[in-house]
Amino acid sequence: MLEDMTTRSPLSPTRRSTVRRSAERAADDRAVLDAVLDAGLVCHLAVVVDGAPRVIPTGYGRDGDTLYLHGSSGAASLRAGFGLDVCVAVTLLDGIVYARSVFHHSVNYRSAVVHGRAVAVTDDAEKLHGLRVLTEHLAPGSWDYTRGPDKKELAKTAVLALDLTEASVKTRVGGPKDEPSDVAAHTGWAGVLPLRQVWDAPIAADDLPGDIAAPVRITGRAAPC
Amino acid sequence: MLEDMTTRSPLSPTRRSTVRRSAERAADDRAVLDAVLDAGLVCHLAVVVDGAPRVIPTGYGRDGDTLYLHGSSGAASLRAGFGLDVCVAVTLLDGIVYARSVFHHSVNYRSAVVHGRAVAVTDDAEKLHGLRVLTEHLAPGSWDYTRGPDKKELAKTAVLALDLTEASVKTRVGGPKDEPSDVAAHTGWAGVLPLRQVWDAPIAADDLPGDIAAPVRITGRAAPC
Repeated sequence: MLEDMTTRSPLSPTRRSTVRRSAERAADDRAVLDAVLDAGLVCHLAVVVDGAPRVIPTGYGRDGDTLYLHGSSGAASLRAGFGLDVCVAVTLLDGIVYARSVFHHSVNYRSAVVHGRAVAVTDDAEKLHGLRVLTEHLAPGSWDYTRGPDKKELAKTAVLALDLTEASVKTRVGGPKDEPSDVAAHTGWAGVLPLRQVWDAPIAADDLPGDIAAPVRITGRAAPC
Repeated sequence: MLEDMTTRSPLSPTRRSTVRRSAERAADDRAVLDAVLDAGLVCHLAVVVDGAPRVIPTGYGRDGDTLYLHGSSGAASLRAGFGLDVCVAVTLLDGIVYARSVFHHSVNYRSAVVHGRAVAVTDDAEKLHGLRVLTEHLAPGSWDYTRGPDKKELAKTAVLALDLTEASVKTRVGGPKDEPSDVAAHTGWAGVLPLRQVWDAPIAADDLPGDIAAPVRITGRAAPC
């Protein structure tokens, strides 16, 4: 079985963020949570709409103990999170674990889950701050070189703030944990096929004049692979 | 603003999978949905527990019109999906879109969202079939070379089946869509920084005898980057 990725470490004492399974794997460490949130690029935001779950991939950024999320102010799914319980997951897949048995096949990953009541950010100054955090998360260094939102654009943008108080993190690293009898059977290869995200060379916009080169803050993200 | 990724194309006529925003971007095509589901590796499953949303990263696999998900049969979050409404998202991030304005910053992506009532698979033969689909999705070709689940392992594994009837897909490709005044201002670079996942060379398990080499079904996944 590909192991489930549902267990969470207790960064908070609430029932829903208490470890239920594979406690040895839970990394009870706020620094690990922050590292996972900072390494991810998009999150999955879950809300309840008409009693049914809805999950939305969206951008986010972390500032200390606050996670900022955003979207169009017209998006019903995002509005469903205003002042209500939400759940946010950031998942990084690091590899496929090949075992001798189907049951012990697994994945290596880093997973952060945050529960809480999302607050709609309505103050313009805080909204701009949240958007800066969000923008710097996906496009580091860009905020200062980009035209900021005008009043109309700001009104079109909804920003949610979510406290990191009730959060949890879980990671899996390393090879398969096979049954001794399966190892002894010498049946086939076992190990890990690592997976990672790489940036390719930047592609200029069609309407970009030829005399503007991509800055180091962008070209520097593409490390040789 | 980093554009929201909430819009979905109407592969079904229900309200929650009807396009509300950026309809021009919705790819009303079942083939696109299948391609996104087949290209993804893990999904995010959202359920409602005690009235609050919960989102879980987990493995999945598609067989025709059925999405199979699985996890430990002891996992409360997975059990919460049995016979109830769930929502599953598969998201592939393809790049960061740098614009001249913060508002038009965006991401390129492929996003599939499936809504429906998940059915717990209890028949052993169908459970095995679902696990084969799941295993072949994450580790193609491995099922036939791996010890299958015994009765105890099968009992420990919960498998959910979700029909793809109510599903939607959305993608964004290409460069930024800036305001003409921002383009004319000639302020800075704009374009796309592409992102992709690459496999690295397989790492053998510590307990693997030296005479067993990784098979082509595994080494073949790691394309030169």
